[in-house]
Amino acid sequence: MTMQYGPSYVRQIAPYVAGKPISEVAREFGLDEARIVKLASNENPLGMPESAKAALARAAAELGRYPDANAFELKAALAARYGVPAEWITLGNGSNDILEIAAHAFVEKGQSVVYSQYSFAVYALATQGLGARAIVVPAVNHGHDLDAMLAAIEADTRLVFIANPNNPTGTFIEGPALEAFLEKVPKGVAVVLDEAYTEYLAVDRRYDSIAWVRRYPNLVVSRTFSKAFGLAGLRVGFAIAQPELTDLLNRLRQPFNVNSMAQAAAIAALGDTAFLERTAELNAAGYHRLTEAFDKLGLEYVPSFGNFVLVRVGNDDGAGSRVNLALLKQGVIVRPVGNYGLPQWLRVTIGLPEENEAFIAALENSLAQA
Amino acid sequence: MTMQYGPSYVRQIAPYVAGKPISEVAREFGLDEARIVKLASNENPLGMPESAKAALARAAAELGRYPDANAFELKAALAARYGVPAEWITLGNGSNDILEIAAHAFVEKGQSVVYSQYSFAVYALATQGLGARAIVVPAVNHGHDLDAMLAAIEADTRLVFIANPNNPTGTFIEGPALEAFLEKVPKGVAVVLDEAYTEYLAVDRRYDSIAWVRRYPNLVVSRTFSKAFGLAGLRVGFAIAQPELTDLLNRLRQPFNVNSMAQAAAIAALGDTAFLERTAELNAAGYHRLTEAFDKLGLEYVPSFGNFVLVRVGNDDGAGSRVNLALLKQGVIVRPVGNYGLPQWLRVTIGLPEENEAFIAALENSLAQA
Repeated sequence: MTMQYGPSYVRQIAPYVAGKPISEVAREFGLDEARIVKLASNENPLGMPESAKAALARAAAELGRYPDANAFELKAALAARYGVPAEWITLGNGSNDILEIAAHAFVEKGQSVVYSQYSFAVYALATQGLGARAIVVPAVNHGHDLDAMLAAIEADTRLVFIANPNNPTGTFIEGPALEAFLEKVPKGVAVVLDEAYTEYLAVDRRYDSIAWVRRYPNLVVSRTFSKAFGLAGLRVGFAIAQPELTDLLNRLRQPFNVNSMAQAAAIAALGDTAFLERTAELNAAGYHRLTEAFDKLGLEYVPSFGNFVLVRVGNDDGAGSRVNLALLKQGVIVRPVGNYGLPQWLRVTIGLPEENEAFIAALENSLAQA
Repeated sequence: MTMQYGPSYVRQIAPYVAGKPISEVAREFGLDEARIVKLASNENPLGMPESAKAALARAAAELGRYPDANAFELKAALAARYGVPAEWITLGNGSNDILEIAAHAFVEKGQSVVYSQYSFAVYALATQGLGARAIVVPAVNHGHDLDAMLAAIEADTRLVFIANPNNPTGTFIEGPALEAFLEKVPKGVAVVLDEAYTEYLAVDRRYDSIAWVRRYPNLVVSRTFSKAFGLAGLRVGFAIAQPELTDLLNRLRQPFNVNSMAQAAAIAALGDTAFLERTAELNAAGYHRLTEAFDKLGLEYVPSFGNFVLVRVGNDDGAGSRVNLALLKQGVIVRPVGNYGLPQWLRVTIGLPEENEAFIAALENSLAQA
């Protein structure tokens, strides 16, 4: 008999499935890396802003040193940008780190966490990693059902995760509905509002979640530099919350969780509004082009408020994997979402115009083969 | 009454105290950054190897992309260097991440963890963060008492942390003694052997801990690129263990915990044996110089096998803070270790020759003032 190490809840975790890296697809399918299109991980197709590249060069001189554990300069820049004290900010190694730290800070084994069906996979992983109980609330139209989530909160619930816009479905909750929800969540239950895609929202959809942080001591707003800001490879995310929750998060945060390059590049990217504007324009045009193609192909999709679209590529539960494999063979990487319980769907990141065209052509081929 | 969030064990954590960054000391004491000497965080005074800088430039092109979650190339390089399958390797955001993940993977609330008095602060933090019970075994001559640690293992003990060489004291356990210990640890109790400073060992002190990993399925060897390899600012560490434990670690590892720059630079640094040799030579010479100065000043120190020396700067419990403050005012940053229960001592990183001289001069001044 094999000796068993670790708590049973850890042994039962199914590790996160990441988007396939370009190099892996090249190795696996014998393709040329330069010709592979990756639309699998909701990265910014413009890459990193030039402003951030310049900041990296300056930071490179001191990489033998540990990062500033308190990230004085980055926190000062975030504080100025979002109008909160630096003491309200917690930095993460990507917002993934924020989500894990929050679960760990607020919940212990046996207590419960509420989140929506079809919401981000890390909510389930973080819950399971603590031996906590997941209360997964059925989605409505692939999005959050806030009334049902409120009703699902139990006496032992310590945390609610909400993603807005949601990943992998792209759905969006309007500001007033979200605030009404926050108003009703019992005190003592923390809410992590994961806004990884918030920079993609059209101006008329935006709401002021930072004002809510001032109003609700149980609210943590989580943001990332991995999407619109274009720094996925460097790993930096952050949380904004009042001091009581921020203090708890910082007790669990690994002191050097955000590396020096990430701190420097994030400061530069934060100030690069021209890059954010270009990113949003490119995304809006790409969204238009992809959904137009889906309409033409008669494919159902979920209207998206992020930089990706969830599209149904067939009516049988093998459809997602089948079309995904056909796309991979043509050098196009998208994200199958069978592990989210969506085996008929694929999630496609909005790319550069030429990447979108390559995907559409490959998709047409793949569907014709099927 | 304030609403209380989070488990009581999280609320009781005292956050890690990092070495003061140069910029913070400059702000606080009104000093010129360029004239400050930092010997506080056991960084490599040579900085990052040139080979790693070149690798960074290549990696910078793709920073808009997520890192390879499986770190194919870095794992292949580590596997080749240490003669283990890639499947035996777990990557961490620094070895701090490895230590946290290991505690989380092997221990649950209420179970116990054994480690030595005066060993690395993260063992206590990781244990506390889980609501686990710490069994802290009194040190002998500032180092591990392996017999007492073995005797301290209880029925609910799931993990033993050992640092060799130890930080912050610099003590060392010879290979045969360590192996005899591993042989006696009950199956089902994981051992994390933290070898962050192993590259500084003289050739005749080295032992083959990777061979032990092959023999002991409960052993995790933890290493870092933050010390001799000179990449503290980039954050990369790794663990080597048999598949059963590695599988558990990887269930909890955040998929993108090691950023793209760190992966690229680590591959380069791993192959840079010339840099490691220069580092070891510089360290040996600096150790000689510092201890010679301590002898001359009549200061007790703990013989060190790492890149730092623990030195007793006075016989009263205010000595460490007092001399530390005097050093700071002269622009020299070392590490006070009162939080380790060593209030009469300071930990000094071995620096470049001119940094060592600046420290010695400032120390002489500080002691004269005291």
